[in-house]
Amino acid sequence: MRPQNPNYRAAVEGIVSGAPFIRYLGIKLDDLGPGWCETSLPIKEHHLQQDGFIHAGLLATLADHSAGMASLTLVPQNQIVLTIEFKINILRPAMGERLYCKAKVLKYGKTITVTESEIFMRNSVEEKLVAKASVTIANVDQMT
Amino acid sequence: MRPQNPNYRAAVEGIVSGAPFIRYLGIKLDDLGPGWCETSLPIKEHHLQQDGFIHAGLLATLADHSAGMASLTLVPQNQIVLTIEFKINILRPAMGERLYCKAKVLKYGKTITVTESEIFMRNSVEEKLVAKASVTIANVDQMT
Amino acid sequence: MRPQNPNYRAAVEGIVSGAPFIRYLGIKLDDLGPGWCETSLPIKEHHLQQDGFIHAGLLATLADHSAGMASLTLVPQNQIVLTIEFKINILRPAMGERLYCKAKVLKYGKTITVTESEIFMRNSVEEKLVAKASVTIANVDQMT
Amino acid sequence: MRPQNPNYRAAVEGIVSGAPFIRYLGIKLDDLGPGWCETSLPIKEHHLQQDGFIHAGLLATLADHSAGMASLTLVPQNQIVLTIEFKINILRPAMGERLYCKAKVLKYGKTITVTESEIFMRNSVEEKLVAKASVTIANVDQMT
Repeated sequence: MRPQNPNYRAAVEGIVSGAPFIRYLGIKLDDLGPGWCETSLPIKEHHLQQDGFIHAGLLATLADHSAGMASLTLVPQNQIVLTIEFKINILRPAMGERLYCKAKVLKYGKTITVTESEIFMRNSVEEKLVAKASVTIANVDQMT
Repeated sequence: MRPQNPNYRAAVEGIVSGAPFIRYLGIKLDDLGPGWCETSLPIKEHHLQQDGFIHAGLLATLADHSAGMASLTLVPQNQIVLTIEFKINILRPAMGERLYCKAKVLKYGKTITVTESEIFMRNSVEEKLVAKASVTIANVDQMT
Repeated sequence: MRPQNPNYRAAVEGIVSGAPFIRYLGIKLDDLGPGWCETSLPIKEHHLQQDGFIHAGLLATLADHSAGMASLTLVPQNQIVLTIEFKINILRPAMGERLYCKAKVLKYGKTITVTESEIFMRNSVEEKLVAKASVTIANVDQMT
Repeated sequence: MRPQNPNYRAAVEGIVSGAPFIRYLGIKLDDLGPGWCETSLPIKEHHLQQDGFIHAGLLATLADHSAGMASLTLVPQNQIVLTIEFKINILRPAMGERLYCKAKVLKYGKTITVTESEIFMRNSVEEKLVAKASVTIANVDQMT
């Protein structure tokens, strides 16, 4: 997979630092390359649902955002990415101090890109898959 | 659909006011009955993504949360609800001052409930469907 | 919802009678209009899975096909429809002599249409929802 | 992942040869092990949709069936597997003489298993991913 935008790194970094909802939640960009990115999120008390687990909506947001950023590394400079749909399976109740997400483009297309996101909990000895999402994304010409 | 918990209303209200992530986002409970609920969310600048639209992750959270509450109206008093998976289609870019969500149980089962959520934008003349989700929920006995 | 192809009825009927897999399975077109269609399928022994229920893959095929036909009623004459993705929830084990499917376009777009399909079992006294699917469909210009 | 049924291989083989819909379509079992299986399907004219591509419903059936068989390798002898829901992304129009499917359990649980299926086209020089599905499966005690 080859990026068409030579400044794809700056494009992604600009969005991660500039998107209000992502800032509000505290999602960080850890690493990225053509067709993939890694993000993480330090968990705060305000991220939890009623039973003390991390809210499924937060998992969904982390998965959707990371998939969008992975897709954005591949589109031309004049395009933005918009989520058409996604599906997420929560494999186990999520908890811990930090969540990690790896997103990878499965199929880049001119108008539609399909990307997967995996969310992990980690401790000093192991990493556990918490959730997995598949995200269908539209590549849309930016209005000027 | 008949509620098994005579206090289902209080159960849902308690969660909506007590779940940290729901409070952090500002989601309100507008109405509820056996197998359904209605919620809404006043949109703030911190709910948006990079292009000024409401973030898909927020739509997903609103849909997932509302589906959970609709399902909770039907379970016995000793059970909690946990999302197994959900899928959401974003039908148009979402914007506006307030989002509305209607969730309705499609099939209640002893261990698994399937619920749908519809999210709307409204103005003085019309209501537009923005997103629709199907949510599979586990009914789980509360640990004591 | 207004059809752009005045001959949309013939277009759909031609596909239902001409698509080899649909003929092989025995799926019938019962009725259609702009943005919707109804299909049915007489169940044979070769439609079942190992435990005597109707195979989930057959439910999926019926849902996907019907969604495609409902979408086809709305596209211009020179376009075909291709499934991008779909999700189906099986609400109860399916059985019976005939399955019925109602598909309805939720949102028609120039390039992407989102359609829902509901599958029912029926007997003389009642109708039961067996499965529900949401289908994302691409409207693609026919190659000539 | 460890099989609880020492005869898991025979259990899967029995279903693949005995399930009427799988026989009707011609799906073969190529290989299997604990938590995974590989299947394939020689494509016939009656597997196609109206434009000459392999029907999305057939891809869905192959994905769903293979996920079920991968899940079945892990359940105890007295349990059957039933699909709760699945989602499939069609990444490119499918064609060719034979389709290949690899299914792998992502998370085995006592009552619910989540499994992924990937479908490929192959020729002498390359293999292309055509579709990918995530399947949520219930492990259900067999009625006696």
